[in-house]
Amino acid sequence: MNNKNSVSINPFTYEVYHIPELLDDRARIDDFVKANEGKKIVVVQGLGFVGAVMSIVCANALTEEYAVIGVDLANEANFWKIRSINEGIFPVIASDRKIELFYRQALAKGNLYATYDPYCYSLADIVIVDINLDVAKYSNENRDLEGYDVDLTPFRKAISAIGENCREDVLILVETTVPPGTCRKVVYPIIKECLEKRGLATSHFKVGHSYERVMPGPEYIDSIQNFYRVYSGINNESADAVESFLRTIIRTDKYPLTRLGSTTATEMAKVLENSFRAMNIAFIVEWSRFAEEAGVNLYEIVKAIRMRPTHRNIMLPGIGVGGYCLTKDPLMASWAKKNLFNSMEGLGQSELAVIINDHMPLYAFKFLQKHYKQDLRKKKVLLLGVSYREDIGDTRYSPVEVFCRCLLKAESEIFLHDPYVRYWEEMELKIHGNLDELLARQLDLIIVCTGHSMYRNNEKLISKILRQDNVFIYDTVGIFSEEEIRRMRTRHPVKILGRGDI
Amino acid sequence: MNNKNSVSINPFTYEVYHIPELLDDRARIDDFVKANEGKKIVVVQGLGFVGAVMSIVCANALTEEYAVIGVDLANEANFWKIRSINEGIFPVIASDRKIELFYRQALAKGNLYATYDPYCYSLADIVIVDINLDVAKYSNENRDLEGYDVDLTPFRKAISAIGENCREDVLILVETTVPPGTCRKVVYPIIKECLEKRGLATSHFKVGHSYERVMPGPEYIDSIQNFYRVYSGINNESADAVESFLRTIIRTDKYPLTRLGSTTATEMAKVLENSFRAMNIAFIVEWSRFAEEAGVNLYEIVKAIRMRPTHRNIMLPGIGVGGYCLTKDPLMASWAKKNLFNSMEGLGQSELAVIINDHMPLYAFKFLQKHYKQDLRKKKVLLLGVSYREDIGDTRYSPVEVFCRCLLKAESEIFLHDPYVRYWEEMELKIHGNLDELLARQLDLIIVCTGHSMYRNNEKLISKILRQDNVFIYDTVGIFSEEEIRRMRTRHPVKILGRGDI
Repeated sequence: MNNKNSVSINPFTYEVYHIPELLDDRARIDDFVKANEGKKIVVVQGLGFVGAVMSIVCANALTEEYAVIGVDLANEANFWKIRSINEGIFPVIASDRKIELFYRQALAKGNLYATYDPYCYSLADIVIVDINLDVAKYSNENRDLEGYDVDLTPFRKAISAIGENCREDVLILVETTVPPGTCRKVVYPIIKECLEKRGLATSHFKVGHSYERVMPGPEYIDSIQNFYRVYSGINNESADAVESFLRTIIRTDKYPLTRLGSTTATEMAKVLENSFRAMNIAFIVEWSRFAEEAGVNLYEIVKAIRMRPTHRNIMLPGIGVGGYCLTKDPLMASWAKKNLFNSMEGLGQSELAVIINDHMPLYAFKFLQKHYKQDLRKKKVLLLGVSYREDIGDTRYSPVEVFCRCLLKAESEIFLHDPYVRYWEEMELKIHGNLDELLARQLDLIIVCTGHSMYRNNEKLISKILRQDNVFIYDTVGIFSEEEIRRMRTRHPVKILGRGDI
Repeated sequence: MNNKNSVSINPFTYEVYHIPELLDDRARIDDFVKANEGKKIVVVQGLGFVGAVMSIVCANALTEEYAVIGVDLANEANFWKIRSINEGIFPVIASDRKIELFYRQALAKGNLYATYDPYCYSLADIVIVDINLDVAKYSNENRDLEGYDVDLTPFRKAISAIGENCREDVLILVETTVPPGTCRKVVYPIIKECLEKRGLATSHFKVGHSYERVMPGPEYIDSIQNFYRVYSGINNESADAVESFLRTIIRTDKYPLTRLGSTTATEMAKVLENSFRAMNIAFIVEWSRFAEEAGVNLYEIVKAIRMRPTHRNIMLPGIGVGGYCLTKDPLMASWAKKNLFNSMEGLGQSELAVIINDHMPLYAFKFLQKHYKQDLRKKKVLLLGVSYREDIGDTRYSPVEVFCRCLLKAESEIFLHDPYVRYWEEMELKIHGNLDELLARQLDLIIVCTGHSMYRNNEKLISKILRQDNVFIYDTVGIFSEEEIRRMRTRHPVKILGRGDI
């Protein structure tokens, strides 16, 4: 418990929290539970993009009133989240207004509390596991993937923290994306062993798996509450318990649940889903190159193909793939195939998708160099959007980071705008909030990196761009309309990734 | 014109047609045109799975009455189609009842005629090109793709036949799947040169491209008449002319047309669409192996994932990919990238999809060997389904062919059933039409190879299987329900491709 002098900073408010030396929150937890007497206790482990939002969804369950305790580690990266939740500021910024609404409702009801103290597991009827499980990727400077590994140590530690404290009849619901086989081969044995050591019965606890399909953005809450769920248990009682719980938080009348035969099956379903998506993106990459060579507009082609119901999810070309899931899940699955099921071969194609996607931002930069032709040194470059996806503030593994580092290496002078990001953690850069101010400067290049709605059909943006004195426009996500491109081209060079026709 | 002694046999009726030595059909064509005076003349080049059906769709156009002439070569493979159309038997068998209806209506109206004589092009207002354009694939006995090539010679010859005869104001609408760039770099120059040679004006002819999305099966006609279309022209007049024509045969009020910027764009759209589909199939292949290893049921996983609107087109595991399109289109695109646009690199991923899919039936056979364990020699094996896709009678490049050849090599005794195929051209084998008779024999193995509806939820089939004396059941397409599997397993071993849980 030696967090002496450690601090944790809220990246939104810049408030500095000192992490206490003595980590004991029992009294407050007991007070919270007492104030919520008679309610089932749900502990959500992990207060990230999923766990934080899952907490408020549980605190606003549809058919039951839970007392919800969010728990995370008292370290630099996470302690501020705990304090922030308890002090009235939700630790996730999103365009979905329901987030704030759900959070306020929970505060008003007093059925939401956050802590770092594993003591809370001892009170839980249900523990929902929403922690991260990372894949370590080893790549060279050309972003070639040279190796990767899954280190289960932190995950095992988190599960042990539950096992060392939990009741013998607890339901542990794993929502984390894990290597297929993990609930059966990792979670179950750990809990069993912990209970044995504590002299408790090992036949009552339940372990289930039901992966979230959380989509940060305008439908953040609905991506939990109003969406299909797949679930399973290590045995029938576990699966039944998971089902009963999910029915209290999800509109299962409109979005029926699907039970699969084993936890390995649901675990595989999740990584398969994300691998499918990663591959769909990787697929369009080489067609973008073909379109550029053949002088056609891939955006118009994809739009036409999407009319077919069977092809509606075909992806658009772009600067790259980011976020926490698609950049690692195919590797996690491949790792599990080899390491948990002793297969001779990994999932080559799914790995290939990650490899191809990893190269996308580097290609986007090469495309820029090819068409801009001039030296980028000292050039004033405005990047529109830094998050990995439109209309969200998530910068984890954003391809814009890679692209931005290329520009920095070329010694460009960079200006950043993003309506959803105030501080770019990975780059340790502040983001400018005022687009007008940025566009009032004379710039050399304006590069659209994220397809945020505010850049689309934005007449003010176009007219400010037109007022610039010869600025190179580069759209990596196809956000500009034909009409906008035509108008901008009267004054500036305009280049679009995935288009060879202009 | 020396087809002396050549014959062409109708594979459905076994009728033998002698190909005439003197190929002159002018008189009959003139009679037909005279009888249809005042109608615009549409010539459909190629009477295969697309052209034959396109002919009857044009003969039953929605807003205009055309005189339609179908044309094909007077050779062994095609002459019977010409005679058959003119003699009241449509050369395509399909489960779509509209096929027969449309054909009968055209015969009744007298606005459909078939010929081999290129003279017909001289009368055409519109020529629709529906011929094949093949990719030659060179593979070794392990089905490893060692090379491939596109030989444009037959295609050029067919286009020349039009150019040598057509009017100077003809509209040539290419529907054939061609390497992107073909209309601009092949069709247009050929027609122009032909007209020049004939001393005609070269500024009036129009060339357009609009790929069909024909799906042989129960919605054969609707896949033309009631479906989205993408189109383009080598210039605006061409695109306008294509649009006007398509409006007369397609319900564009419900299925709006999409015009793309160039013929290269629509050509690319088509091969991109099919490559996407081929890749989606290839994607699930390695996951099938993972599911088998991890002891889970991939069918249930895919079914669960398909609930997501973005993942509805995720494919099921199976015996392999067949048909005329998916087995070659990705290669065609890759060929065009390198050969028509001088790119250094082909479309590696899309090629990989073909390579992976080519191996599928061999794996399906290995799976059988692994689980059946016994020698297959002299074993009586019933294959249910030989066509490449459910509920159609198309055996072109069927994966069942590869699988069947493995069994023949193992000296199994093979019995074949397929409700849509009478004669298996590629294997030169007759197909047994009576399933009851086949199941009355004592068999050693029953293998479902095609997911025809008649094998699904077929109580009679299950009860006949149950009456067999220890037969090995192998389902390569996941057609049997859990209940059916459970019942069969009380008497027989049952194995399902893509499932490790049973």
